[in-house]
Amino acid sequence: MNAPGYFDSLDFKALKAAYPAGEDFTARYTAMSRDELRARQERDFALLMKRGWDIPFYRRLWGAKGIAPGDIRSLEDLPKLPSFDKADLMASIAAHPPLGDFHGRTDGPVILHTTSGTTGKPQVLLFGPWGREVGNLLVARMALWQGLRPDDVVHSVYGHGMINGGHYIREAFTHFTSALFLPAGTGIETRSATQVQLMREFGATVLVGFVDYLRKLATIARDSGLEPGRDIPVRMIIGHLGMEDRAATEAAWGGAKAYDWYGVGDTGAIAGEGPDRDGLYIWEDAQFLEICDVETGAPVPPGNTGDMVVTSLYKRDVAPVIRFNTHDVSALRTDRNATGMVFDRIRGFLGRSDNMVKLKGINLFPHAIGAILENRPELTGEYVCRLWRGPDLADQLTVLIEHRAICDTSRAELASLLRLRLGVEVQVELVPPGATAPLTEIDLRQKPLRLIDARAR
Amino acid sequence: MNAPGYFDSLDFKALKAAYPAGEDFTARYTAMSRDELRARQERDFALLMKRGWDIPFYRRLWGAKGIAPGDIRSLEDLPKLPSFDKADLMASIAAHPPLGDFHGRTDGPVILHTTSGTTGKPQVLLFGPWGREVGNLLVARMALWQGLRPDDVVHSVYGHGMINGGHYIREAFTHFTSALFLPAGTGIETRSATQVQLMREFGATVLVGFVDYLRKLATIARDSGLEPGRDIPVRMIIGHLGMEDRAATEAAWGGAKAYDWYGVGDTGAIAGEGPDRDGLYIWEDAQFLEICDVETGAPVPPGNTGDMVVTSLYKRDVAPVIRFNTHDVSALRTDRNATGMVFDRIRGFLGRSDNMVKLKGINLFPHAIGAILENRPELTGEYVCRLWRGPDLADQLTVLIEHRAICDTSRAELASLLRLRLGVEVQVELVPPGATAPLTEIDLRQKPLRLIDARAR
Repeated sequence: MNAPGYFDSLDFKALKAAYPAGEDFTARYTAMSRDELRARQERDFALLMKRGWDIPFYRRLWGAKGIAPGDIRSLEDLPKLPSFDKADLMASIAAHPPLGDFHGRTDGPVILHTTSGTTGKPQVLLFGPWGREVGNLLVARMALWQGLRPDDVVHSVYGHGMINGGHYIREAFTHFTSALFLPAGTGIETRSATQVQLMREFGATVLVGFVDYLRKLATIARDSGLEPGRDIPVRMIIGHLGMEDRAATEAAWGGAKAYDWYGVGDTGAIAGEGPDRDGLYIWEDAQFLEICDVETGAPVPPGNTGDMVVTSLYKRDVAPVIRFNTHDVSALRTDRNATGMVFDRIRGFLGRSDNMVKLKGINLFPHAIGAILENRPELTGEYVCRLWRGPDLADQLTVLIEHRAICDTSRAELASLLRLRLGVEVQVELVPPGATAPLTEIDLRQKPLRLIDARAR
Repeated sequence: MNAPGYFDSLDFKALKAAYPAGEDFTARYTAMSRDELRARQERDFALLMKRGWDIPFYRRLWGAKGIAPGDIRSLEDLPKLPSFDKADLMASIAAHPPLGDFHGRTDGPVILHTTSGTTGKPQVLLFGPWGREVGNLLVARMALWQGLRPDDVVHSVYGHGMINGGHYIREAFTHFTSALFLPAGTGIETRSATQVQLMREFGATVLVGFVDYLRKLATIARDSGLEPGRDIPVRMIIGHLGMEDRAATEAAWGGAKAYDWYGVGDTGAIAGEGPDRDGLYIWEDAQFLEICDVETGAPVPPGNTGDMVVTSLYKRDVAPVIRFNTHDVSALRTDRNATGMVFDRIRGFLGRSDNMVKLKGINLFPHAIGAILENRPELTGEYVCRLWRGPDLADQLTVLIEHRAICDTSRAELASLLRLRLGVEVQVELVPPGATAPLTEIDLRQKPLRLIDARAR
């Protein structure tokens, strides 16, 4: 056969025209109105829906609700479509192994990876050339907007192998920026001490990856006599900050500025902070984001929390994503921003709805506790929640908090602080530094566990 | 800044015109004469030399020999240029950290990796877009010629992280073929048991990587009740076979056909077997290979063994490679081949000259011992050589061989076999299965050690 080509079908000029980066990005989207943006989204959505009907998974999902091709005429109608989640994709794979039927792969080139399996078994991800490259560009465009320069040295701790993350980020930075990129990977791929040496040797100025591990690397640098920020000139950290991580991460790296972003493997980058670091701008030329009530699934008004349900307007080739429920919780912001960009924002990652705990009618996300515990020198910032059933069969939450000087006064003070901030009573147990690690598995996984559900035991 | 682009400078049509793949590849190079090939090489070489004079490393290397830009007028003059090796590149890095001065990086996009450090400290590798993509295409072109099909499922055990190998092979297969590609990586990235599950789940038909580890995976498959070749339908293995590995590798995978190829990180693929599996065709449209006497450095006649010294005619952008001595030993074949291709062949990897042992005037490569020990059921095939200095100050070689039924008769028989085949007396010591692993480090490194130099101790 003749060599078929991933690049044969790609028109990079068209790609950059559709998804500009750098100055073209800010120029276009500071000049655009919400109406113009909506018109663009509608055009892309019509093409996406047309492709969606080719995919057996969607035909089944939508058909089961009695939806026919003509029924969804615009984004107004989008909430009529059922959302789906990872469990549906895993069921598709189980029924149609090994790739599932949630894609329209023919015999053209395709890129296969898996998720990291943070929330269960790794899931197959498939990318066609257009979907892959636009996804890569969205990450690079964000980094450039945040202030990435051609002379930056970017050190990445995202993992490789079957997992998408490391490959995706490497492609984004090497193919769509001029920065020098070090794909160090996880501490298993490149030992932590070697990572610190690499950063030192190459003069890393930007770190990308999971911030728990990036903080650990700062500690390892210090232990080996290097001062983060001085001996390793990191000035920017692009990571997934959650609610609690910014101050601790910036302090660990000698005052480098941390930038939050959010995305999942199926959809690519969904939102990220701009240079103003005031909320995460939704990449609305590429993603249509709904915030939906965790229980009813109905879209909620701006400001209210709910599941992020994503429709990737740009992924029209191999694996379209139409109303994927990430089960990650955020809230929409529609207030005016400082950059002049047309995009709306979200508040960032507020927790996982499948980790949501209901105590006496109050919804509580274990990840939110991190934000309350940050910036206190007597704490390490590490904690884990245990959900259990009391003798009265009511759910109870115990928060294990690492404390450098355990005493009853401290315990009472933290219990009172949490009651005040969470709006509901939780138990507090103080443990010595390092004692939560076996429960959070922080040394083994890139995203530590923060909730142990002990009710069934 | 505006996003500068790796792809902006790439013309994939021009790339495929210069380096055809698939049917275009065989059509062009079965119709071409050696003279036409030489003319093409001369044109590319002239451009390469022009670029070479931009690079501080080459200006220094060549200037020290009194060579001026006009002195090298054609490939005839190439042997006048000094060769260099990894030690020279490491010295360049030490003098000009962290990237050395053996490249012409300006502020355009560049891809950075390191070697795996098999023969010492990992070394920086830099790629510009053209050099990177042609390098990727050369691997894909070879696999297609060997018989890769669009419906193949390719499982790769090349490692990722900073190391080039895994990324390079992933790019080659995903971007220049339509096969489904599983970037499993090393056993550290994806546990061996999980690798076997993956192969089973996705129906791997082609394996790529280091064959020592691929054989280990066959054992793990058998241990978990799977029959390689039947339950995992592997039909092709593309690896670095050395002299001893083909039969054992094919047998381990139920009769799959193994294809040998050779290349190093600095140069990309240099040569590979064709469908006839009769010697490794040199990719002479991209690489100019000299076989040079290990001691004098002078080119040797066809058939004689010597160091492979490579000039990468296609790498004209960031990091030109002009007379790089790999210190890997092979021999040129200029006899007529069965495929009709214009390219000359080499015999394959015969050993490393820096591992070459001289015993009583006889040159001996430890890797060659593997070929003598293969296909004997009483042996595991694992061995390691220890070089030591006898009381008479003469070098001695002891070969430790894993044996399932150690006895003095076996030892004497193997000693006599090795004396006969090597042409010189070596000591033989038999050890139980698994006993060489701590010395070869076969569980830790992808290419096991076969020579321990104990003379200095």
